[in-house]
Amino acid sequence: MGASRTLGVVGAGQLGRMLHQAAVSHVIGPETTIRFLAEHPDEPAVQVAPSWEIGAAMSADDLTRFAKGCDVVTFEHEVVDLQAIRALERAGAVVRPSAAALAIVADKVAMRRAVQGAGLPVPPWCQVADADQLDDAIGRWPSVVLKLSRGGYDGRGVFMPDSADEAARIGRTLLQAGAVLLVEPRIAFEAEAAIIVARRPGGQCVVYDPVRTEQVDGQCREVRVPSGLAPAVAARCREVAIAAAAAVDVVGLLAVELFVLDGGNVVVNELAVRPHNTGHHTIDACVTSQFENHLRAVLDLPLGDPSLRCDAAVMVNVIGNAVGDDPVDHLEAALALDPAARIHLYGKRARPDRKLGHVTVCADEVDDAAARAWAVVAALHGDGRP
Amino acid sequence: MGASRTLGVVGAGQLGRMLHQAAVSHVIGPETTIRFLAEHPDEPAVQVAPSWEIGAAMSADDLTRFAKGCDVVTFEHEVVDLQAIRALERAGAVVRPSAAALAIVADKVAMRRAVQGAGLPVPPWCQVADADQLDDAIGRWPSVVLKLSRGGYDGRGVFMPDSADEAARIGRTLLQAGAVLLVEPRIAFEAEAAIIVARRPGGQCVVYDPVRTEQVDGQCREVRVPSGLAPAVAARCREVAIAAAAAVDVVGLLAVELFVLDGGNVVVNELAVRPHNTGHHTIDACVTSQFENHLRAVLDLPLGDPSLRCDAAVMVNVIGNAVGDDPVDHLEAALALDPAARIHLYGKRARPDRKLGHVTVCADEVDDAAARAWAVVAALHGDGRP
Repeated sequence: MGASRTLGVVGAGQLGRMLHQAAVSHVIGPETTIRFLAEHPDEPAVQVAPSWEIGAAMSADDLTRFAKGCDVVTFEHEVVDLQAIRALERAGAVVRPSAAALAIVADKVAMRRAVQGAGLPVPPWCQVADADQLDDAIGRWPSVVLKLSRGGYDGRGVFMPDSADEAARIGRTLLQAGAVLLVEPRIAFEAEAAIIVARRPGGQCVVYDPVRTEQVDGQCREVRVPSGLAPAVAARCREVAIAAAAAVDVVGLLAVELFVLDGGNVVVNELAVRPHNTGHHTIDACVTSQFENHLRAVLDLPLGDPSLRCDAAVMVNVIGNAVGDDPVDHLEAALALDPAARIHLYGKRARPDRKLGHVTVCADEVDDAAARAWAVVAALHGDGRP
Repeated sequence: MGASRTLGVVGAGQLGRMLHQAAVSHVIGPETTIRFLAEHPDEPAVQVAPSWEIGAAMSADDLTRFAKGCDVVTFEHEVVDLQAIRALERAGAVVRPSAAALAIVADKVAMRRAVQGAGLPVPPWCQVADADQLDDAIGRWPSVVLKLSRGGYDGRGVFMPDSADEAARIGRTLLQAGAVLLVEPRIAFEAEAAIIVARRPGGQCVVYDPVRTEQVDGQCREVRVPSGLAPAVAARCREVAIAAAAAVDVVGLLAVELFVLDGGNVVVNELAVRPHNTGHHTIDACVTSQFENHLRAVLDLPLGDPSLRCDAAVMVNVIGNAVGDDPVDHLEAALALDPAARIHLYGKRARPDRKLGHVTVCADEVDDAAARAWAVVAALHGDGRP
């Protein structure tokens, strides 16, 4: 360190907010600033951080202007103008993760190819760019999942038709809109797991314990650790994650979502190159959080110990309900319910299906942790109140 | 909550900075802002927080203006204009802790009287306001400690003369400058301990485990937990701390520094009504940190579990050395040395004797934690480097 420098974070949502919180410990100082590129002045990170500017991550102009003031640029999401990022790299900007890594995760087809190309297991899949390819893909498997190759997130952009006819109808509509699809069979899996790797320039990396995740409509609801996976399966998850991090040549975090198949084989479903919802428990349950390790990795500092510091932890997301109830209105009841629960609220206006916060409970036993975390989330939704 | 509100924090040093870090979890949102009254725009909290204004805590005008924009006012230090705080209270401001509590801890004589008045044990002492009282006090005990009743901190304002003559000389000088002194015998104690209580309006409180502290020249250097005190002594510390919190009627935190005498009796040495250096380990070692519980207390929210979440923890302060070496320059080496150490740097320019940061190590055994924490602090000072 020594000379003055600015770490720029593209995006100012909850991931940026939690990055800022981690940066307070030893990153921010007279010589080091963390600065956000925010879409709106009311975003989660802007509420808590002193340095930010307004701009769109999809605007080449905004990204270029933002990067000019930064010594290192990183990201809290991957929906960015990749051309602009590539141009910045060519001009000598330090971008971590790189445009090449971002390009892989921004496109599900590219992601599958990269994982497969690295010799790592993926589900059966094919790319669909026209109606013939669509019919061919639908004919291959008894039932299929259609995924937009680009632009989906949090379950959006993933379609699970109930019949071949419905698949054909949905697929044609998406193709007519200009989309490229990734089509795969609906997989019978035993569990969904995720694992996070933090990786420095040069390849030093640390790996968090794999977690078991519960998705509802493609959106993460619950994360459990220990995962309950057989030791050999957990070891395989680690192996695959480290290899995937090397294949993507990520600097920062790589989150790997996996399906654990009957029999214990694992296949890579998705990758992300940023702090990930399946790592939020690391704030309260691990020696070093994913957020601190992301900062350490992109600043090329030695990585922190990712070990669990409790026997079990469960994280449950607080997701906006249909009536738009604000969890902040129920914070007092939730805090009172369980003095050991760790409640994180992101400062977002309540809207249905929106991730508004999360609750982590550390305990001796994972089912106990889960019961307590869900109870606190219910309290935040005002359930059980007179 | 619901309606929009601002929590004002008087002071923007490292305690304010760590309060802000804690406030990110669930306090700050579209409806709740935390705002600092800072003396300078480069202070530790200002570097990490979006909302602050410049003003002096000893200026009635600045305090009054600041408080006007706040729904609740709290403090990260006690060197404030008490008259102004009293006037604010009379005008209906919500001040936590109250002017009455601040007045007690701002004056060592008032503090002793309050503790003694509550029936709690204190060392022998007397108030000294003139030369006769001084001579009388010096004659009472074989060797004495002179303390400025007001304005001292971190060992400043405490004098330990080697002889009665020197005591008389120093005492006269201080009296001539208009000081009131607290004079007490030099006490042979077995250990110094400290204990923190968080207390809500109405009196609900939680108590942290007592810690053993090591002071050098009156400045905290090391904090160990478990304290190693006999169970009965630790229980007595808790009892005294809870009674002191009630006596001061504190809202927020009360830190109680105690001497443990030979034979296991405890006496109260000092009180503080704010986050305290002897509680910095709670960030990494306890379920709920002192900073989060201070916020919860002053916002009248249910308090969090203060339990230790590891077998042992040691915190060592990073204090500016004589050569003015900046720990930030050695951060990389320190992070590399112990990936599980928790390093906190406050963003302050290095100056001799200045508290620049702290390191906490959690471990199975307290001596192991201490050895590791001191090694990381040595690395931050550049020791052991080629």
